Amino acid sequence: MEIFKKAILPKGFLAAGVASGIKRSGKPDLALFFSEVPAQAACLFTSNKIQAAPLIFCKASLKKSPVHQAIIVNSGNANCFTGKKGLADAEETAVLLAAQTGISKAGVLVASTGIIGRPLPMEKIRAGIPLLVSGLSTEGITRAKTAILTTDKVSKEITVRYKQAGKTITVCGVAKGSGMIAPDLATMLSFVFTDAFIAGYILRKAVRAAAESSFNCISIDGCMSTNDTLAVMANGEALASRIVSGRDYDAFLWALSYVCRHLAISLVKDGEGASKFIRIKVGGGKNYAQAKKAALAVANSNLFKTAVYGENPNFGRIAAAVGGCGIELNPEKLKVKLGPLHQKEVLVDVELGAGKATAVVYTSDLTPEYIKINAEYN
Amino acid sequence: MEIFKKAILPKGFLAAGVASGIKRSGKPDLALFFSEVPAQAACLFTSNKIQAAPLIFCKASLKKSPVHQAIIVNSGNANCFTGKKGLADAEETAVLLAAQTGISKAGVLVASTGIIGRPLPMEKIRAGIPLLVSGLSTEGITRAKTAILTTDKVSKEITVRYKQAGKTITVCGVAKGSGMIAPDLATMLSFVFTDAFIAGYILRKAVRAAAESSFNCISIDGCMSTNDTLAVMANGEALASRIVSGRDYDAFLWALSYVCRHLAISLVKDGEGASKFIRIKVGGGKNYAQAKKAALAVANSNLFKTAVYGENPNFGRIAAAVGGCGIELNPEKLKVKLGPLHQKEVLVDVELGAGKATAVVYTSDLTPEYIKINAEYN
Repeated sequence: MEIFKKAILPKGFLAAGVASGIKRSGKPDLALFFSEVPAQAACLFTSNKIQAAPLIFCKASLKKSPVHQAIIVNSGNANCFTGKKGLADAEETAVLLAAQTGISKAGVLVASTGIIGRPLPMEKIRAGIPLLVSGLSTEGITRAKTAILTTDKVSKEITVRYKQAGKTITVCGVAKGSGMIAPDLATMLSFVFTDAFIAGYILRKAVRAAAESSFNCISIDGCMSTNDTLAVMANGEALASRIVSGRDYDAFLWALSYVCRHLAISLVKDGEGASKFIRIKVGGGKNYAQAKKAALAVANSNLFKTAVYGENPNFGRIAAAVGGCGIELNPEKLKVKLGPLHQKEVLVDVELGAGKATAVVYTSDLTPEYIKINAEYN
Repeated sequence: MEIFKKAILPKGFLAAGVASGIKRSGKPDLALFFSEVPAQAACLFTSNKIQAAPLIFCKASLKKSPVHQAIIVNSGNANCFTGKKGLADAEETAVLLAAQTGISKAGVLVASTGIIGRPLPMEKIRAGIPLLVSGLSTEGITRAKTAILTTDKVSKEITVRYKQAGKTITVCGVAKGSGMIAPDLATMLSFVFTDAFIAGYILRKAVRAAAESSFNCISIDGCMSTNDTLAVMANGEALASRIVSGRDYDAFLWALSYVCRHLAISLVKDGEGASKFIRIKVGGGKNYAQAKKAALAVANSNLFKTAVYGENPNFGRIAAAVGGCGIELNPEKLKVKLGPLHQKEVLVDVELGAGKATAVVYTSDLTPEYIKINAEYN
């Protein structure tokens, strides 16, 4: 198995990125990921009750068929809280892209990230789509991965290659996000591409499992986005045999999980204003859900996160977060360990003493820079 | 009815405050509130599973009898996460105070606020108690109300006087706290004294009702303290008739609620680093619990609170907080209004469109100063 710390598209995938003018900065803001052949798509979306128009569009499209060929993404505008006009805009984007690429509208997924509550500037998207399609290439991933960013300081990308009966399978992921989420300018979007050959329902099972140990274990500010999307496409172009179960499935899940965990951890490390990366391990839980609830309570405690920023070894704030999160707890069995705080990576170890389940959650510290980024009027 | 923006003790109450040396700053850190006759006491405590030793002590004492005569409070040390030694220290404090004042240990309540996880410096408390008791007077409230403070910038105090069949009843409250709570230096402690004549179980009912519309409707950082305490004492010294129900009860509840709400709002206004006071009204709820859950979700959204600090009129962050809090929601019926942000008091008005229930919650903005206060190593 080989790991590359950059995005290398699997066989049969192309990408492109352009600056269409949605971002006033003039930076790239429109990205396209394209499979030369129809691919199986599996997506996970935010559980926020307020869902952006592109999510509503994608859900309806995936319900009809998992087979898709293109994902078009704009940054700078979330197309959320935009009513019927927003849905029509997402639809029109898909129709225009389908016409330009010669595929059916049913094969297009749409994603948006940026400010909430403002209409999508459709004239810019209309003008951008032909440029985007004419720019499609395997190297286009370099521009595509930056066109999906907003407040991110760095792009998030990873590629894993492994062998399945002599054939090389590639799993490549790119992501954006620097609040775990944020309704405003820091939604999490992750796109993963693979040339593995896999049925839609098995791909969906693998995606749920990979997300549980990656994107579902991170929190930057405890806020839940309206646009969070993880989209995975598998096009079979590695020409390997179909993944069904057993060793083939395990190897694929391992590679997919590696990609997702790398992207998730990269999101946290680039968290808005983050100066430290924090790994919170909670052991001794009655079950996984209990351990994870306690770990997320610590990850979302402003007092704890501020103490880490200040290198203030305040284990009482960890105990109070665990005690306040609503789980059953015997205070006499609670143990809290806190690693050295002067390092870039801080380890927290909590023992509940109620059972054998363990959960690990990742977060960042809370800093004056976070406030600066999110206080500024856009 | 008369309202005084300062603490004026009701008939039969005395108070004192001294600097015993628990705080390295040399500021007053030991307070005593004392009723000359046995009084009915009703208390509410934090729901955090980690509870400080004084809370465990008080709960046991109140279980035996509601009748109490003294509350001794230290600031600078929370006596929490201190094990059996902590419980023994709370017990010894009560025993020493009882001996010095000539009452039974069963009549003493104990409260602590300050840093978690360090043993109470008992030699300072032992030396401080005789000074404290000899300083008891009606004017002693002036020193007592400052001796309970930690990171607070101002003392919180209020007095309401009203007539019951020709007799004047006084309800007086003092409080400390500048995080809604905080396991560290910002626990909420509130003490309310009245010379009304009321049975223990009716007093408890009134206290629960008054807290629901005051202390249970504020949030500064969403963190839950290990020491939060509201203690109310009623000694009957106004010599008015016993409050049972009807108009007498309603008038008392009104005065008690006024005092609690004033103290709660004062806590928020003095919230750590707060530059703005935010009132969040959620209407159209299916029931009160649903409306309050939505209001607290907005109050605890770092992104929303940071936007208010930056005077960034970002209503999308309010919608996303409501959408992410787990209530049933029809996004098309959700309406969000945000008042002018350049003022010291900011109004948020959310309409869920699901029913007729309304909840109001108070919070403050999230500022670089909050981080500075909580990051510093103590």
